Amino acid sequence: MAKKNNNKNEKYFQVYGINNCIPVLDNSSFKIINIFISEDKVSKHKSIITYEKYRKKIKVIKNSVFYEKFAGYRTQGLVVSFYGDIVKNINENNFNKKNSCLLILDQVEDPQNAGQIIRTSECAGIDGIIFPVHNSFRITNTVLNVSQGAFVNIPLYEVTNISRTIQNLKNNDFWVVGIENTKDAELWSNIDYSGKTVIILGSEGKGIRKNVISHCDFLGKIPMQGLTNSLNVSAAVSAILFERLRQIR
Amino acid sequence: MAKKNNNKNEKYFQVYGINNCIPVLDNSSFKIINIFISEDKVSKHKSIITYEKYRKKIKVIKNSVFYEKFAGYRTQGLVVSFYGDIVKNINENNFNKKNSCLLILDQVEDPQNAGQIIRTSECAGIDGIIFPVHNSFRITNTVLNVSQGAFVNIPLYEVTNISRTIQNLKNNDFWVVGIENTKDAELWSNIDYSGKTVIILGSEGKGIRKNVISHCDFLGKIPMQGLTNSLNVSAAVSAILFERLRQIR
Repeated sequence: MAKKNNNKNEKYFQVYGINNCIPVLDNSSFKIINIFISEDKVSKHKSIITYEKYRKKIKVIKNSVFYEKFAGYRTQGLVVSFYGDIVKNINENNFNKKNSCLLILDQVEDPQNAGQIIRTSECAGIDGIIFPVHNSFRITNTVLNVSQGAFVNIPLYEVTNISRTIQNLKNNDFWVVGIENTKDAELWSNIDYSGKTVIILGSEGKGIRKNVISHCDFLGKIPMQGLTNSLNVSAAVSAILFERLRQIR
Repeated sequence: MAKKNNNKNEKYFQVYGINNCIPVLDNSSFKIINIFISEDKVSKHKSIITYEKYRKKIKVIKNSVFYEKFAGYRTQGLVVSFYGDIVKNINENNFNKKNSCLLILDQVEDPQNAGQIIRTSECAGIDGIIFPVHNSFRITNTVLNVSQGAFVNIPLYEVTNISRTIQNLKNNDFWVVGIENTKDAELWSNIDYSGKTVIILGSEGKGIRKNVISHCDFLGKIPMQGLTNSLNVSAAVSAILFERLRQIR
């Protein structure tokens, strides 16, 4: 039976497998509803079962039922359903570290890409991901699961007006870098990502919207070396964020 | 009706959407079997229909039938089936460019990762991808489609014995870099990727096998900055290959 949900921003999610479930269980901000464990994995997941506070949430399920119920998911015999307030409200005054870095995804719609970008961004140590409420991926089970638990450890900010957010960040001493393969753009590796930096990427097909581009202090590009003319946006994020990490280390 | 296939190395594949289909149709080494176009996309794909040599292969299909037949695929109203010899035999003497670079994937099994890595590698301009015949992804429709046509433009080498291949490459003046998060490993960005270089990555879970590691001249690592302890292998490939590109430009 699902616990009654009193926070209107909280939504119902379900995550699969160890990498996704353990960070959720270890984080006190989520309201755990059910912890499903397949009978054949009970001894493997014994440490979870001994979480005192979750004892009543655990449901050990017969293998045949479990694997039919969660067919198509990589569960490792473990599924957690919960209420969570995954999307945060941004306060642009709150980023005061020397090398604060935020990523803006402008019109990235594919949930696989979104999930991969969350995972990569968390590994690369940036301070959050911002995306618009319209024409964007939404936070779904797919996005969370693809991120492999990273969504618990990096703030995700949904904003109604990207331009206003960028302006507020600029007022707080951020420099704005857009990654867009245009003539005027500099090589990605010639751009200085140190200090407080916002990095903006669009989707492979559409790029960054013009009114968003107009806010950029610098434009960077990753020149394609082959005949295929477009790098996947999550691969581009990885190249950029680890170039930043190289520079600031 | 499928054309009789006389080359035993050729296999039957099916690709979906413009980015995958056009490179296949433009490449004379594939034997095209069918070009399926949905009725509503005939005018969009008119240029394809005017390929003189493929006129007899084109099958315009009623929308309802087309979208049922290819449900679940991002077709853009275009599907091509063909026989192709996608996997090449490696000749280690054949890499003579100053900055030749090959990627070895040791036990990477996930077809999504494999497809993304093919796409990223082609964009980053390396000379081929090597993978073992056992305990590895195979070249499937999923791998090809995820690569978004890149498989046409980068050689893919399946080898029976990775150690022997590495030894042959070393005999041809290649340096061997393994990417593995161990204590002894240097920062990924402190490694010199110029000259003839082989870069080896394993899967996220298992890493590179010990006997393969033993052939490495250098070990590099990408230190994780967050709490999630593992970067997706295709994200790691992107970080490494664009660091190489930065160095050699």
